[in-house]
Amino acid sequence: MLTKIKKLICENKNIALVGHIMPDGDTIGSCLALGYALESQGKNVELFCQDEIPDNLCFLKGCDKFHNEIISCNYCFDLVIALDCSDPERLGIFYKLLETSNQTINIDHHISNTKFALVNWVDPTAAATCELVYELIKNLNIPINMGIANAIYTGISTDTGNFSYSNTTSKTHIIAAELLETGVQPEEMSMNIYKNNSIERVKLISKAIDTIELHEDGCISTMEITRDMLIEVGVHEKESSGMVNYAKDIKGVELALLFKEQEDGQIKVSMRSKKIVDCNELASLFGGGGHARAAGCTINTTLYNAKKIVLEEAKSFLKG
Amino acid sequence: MLTKIKKLICENKNIALVGHIMPDGDTIGSCLALGYALESQGKNVELFCQDEIPDNLCFLKGCDKFHNEIISCNYCFDLVIALDCSDPERLGIFYKLLETSNQTINIDHHISNTKFALVNWVDPTAAATCELVYELIKNLNIPINMGIANAIYTGISTDTGNFSYSNTTSKTHIIAAELLETGVQPEEMSMNIYKNNSIERVKLISKAIDTIELHEDGCISTMEITRDMLIEVGVHEKESSGMVNYAKDIKGVELALLFKEQEDGQIKVSMRSKKIVDCNELASLFGGGGHARAAGCTINTTLYNAKKIVLEEAKSFLKG
Repeated sequence: MLTKIKKLICENKNIALVGHIMPDGDTIGSCLALGYALESQGKNVELFCQDEIPDNLCFLKGCDKFHNEIISCNYCFDLVIALDCSDPERLGIFYKLLETSNQTINIDHHISNTKFALVNWVDPTAAATCELVYELIKNLNIPINMGIANAIYTGISTDTGNFSYSNTTSKTHIIAAELLETGVQPEEMSMNIYKNNSIERVKLISKAIDTIELHEDGCISTMEITRDMLIEVGVHEKESSGMVNYAKDIKGVELALLFKEQEDGQIKVSMRSKKIVDCNELASLFGGGGHARAAGCTINTTLYNAKKIVLEEAKSFLKG
Repeated sequence: MLTKIKKLICENKNIALVGHIMPDGDTIGSCLALGYALESQGKNVELFCQDEIPDNLCFLKGCDKFHNEIISCNYCFDLVIALDCSDPERLGIFYKLLETSNQTINIDHHISNTKFALVNWVDPTAAATCELVYELIKNLNIPINMGIANAIYTGISTDTGNFSYSNTTSKTHIIAAELLETGVQPEEMSMNIYKNNSIERVKLISKAIDTIELHEDGCISTMEITRDMLIEVGVHEKESSGMVNYAKDIKGVELALLFKEQEDGQIKVSMRSKKIVDCNELASLFGGGGHARAAGCTINTTLYNAKKIVLEEAKSFLKG
């Protein structure tokens, strides 16, 4: 697989790297790292990502180079590489780039990957696509500079909860060791990625925690984020990312449910479980889905009702 | 150094391992790991730690083996090893063990270590004493079993903020890689160590965040924890550990100050800075001390006054 990919890269000059919609650290880190590496080999590289880069990733050098709309370029790309995209829809408007190119590569670690490119390197044992990009860059004998190192570290850190999720492997740590050798500053990275909250987000955490309730002898916790709370604090809904964890990380809680009022009045439910409850199954009862430990759905009713009906179903999942 | 330590260990049978007062993951992890290793070599090992093991470490197997008072044993120890103790006072009542033994070893990573033993292995470049214990166990050719691996991982994780503080080195990650190979489950560890909050602690987080105020154009943040808050939530003060970080991890904040009302009415001030303010210097103005990035002091006045006088001094520290 790596041989095929190396050959395609060596034979082509104008290369497009595409990240997924609603980008995260892994897709942005993968594009930046591979971009820096290929540029150092004299390639013409353009980066694409339909949606805005999250604030906490904007410290990464090169983030401003991403195109978020189709550019009128005077050359077509010889090669298009999708990074961390499980299916073509995840490329958003840049799916077009795939369609107009004969040479396409798909590098990803999602088990659900649909293998939509000419060459597909999908490895679900990798904690992050950035691990695969690291392997590719090493295989291409391209030296790891600071730009590459910080980008790869970011992808690995964000996809592993800074080395704390179960996808973290000894290989993850071996790569991190080399990145630190290169000069990556772990404290600075963690400060930039995780510890740069707006005061509004912090105030929203307080309000959201205040709504936590325990049910079923403390096995289920619920949390609520209403439009009123967002307006009162003066914050966009996207600032509420990750808050369900405050409800989950409580002793004895197996399942945490966050109910978020959407602008259109519907209720978005985020589900997180520790060991027993299959969140994907639970969410699918309400037309949603996801993974066993993290899933979600959107319900067209009031917050009060959504909480009632989801809790009712959730109880039967506690026994596994 | 390692040769001397190995010799002492090989020559002696009855060995006492002592951790420091107000124990943390590194001292507990070091004692447990070295204890398991030495027991596997047929040594008689006893573990000592004056104060209670924090709740979040009690999942570690063997935590119940620590003696917290002088035991009437029918043998004296041939060898006493202090682990993660920067000075003899840190051993608390078990300083006595040092006094009654001719053979003493001091293994630590604190730069301030007073080298109080016969053999002193002090390496401030180690992120955790557990890194040194790991090196010693490897040098003794003792296989790393699960008990040892989990204990060492705990010490490394807690002393490095799970690989996020600036003391994390490539060596830290190399060791973590081997521990994961041995079978350490990072998600389970992180769940046990960091994500097992009491509901009361979570509610206290909410109340504490509510008191956050920004000063000096957002460069200084203050947070308050009053006796009333603790009573209302129904929680012991020790459950407030780490909360100052909510005040620190805000965009633009350089210095975070947490004012905690003590039972005796005094005000304990915790100071955390990001890059500029020397917290140790600031705290020393009020008879306290610590490190550049983390320090504290206790002031005998009202919370209102303490805040006023510390803020007044803190302003002049902002320029570095």
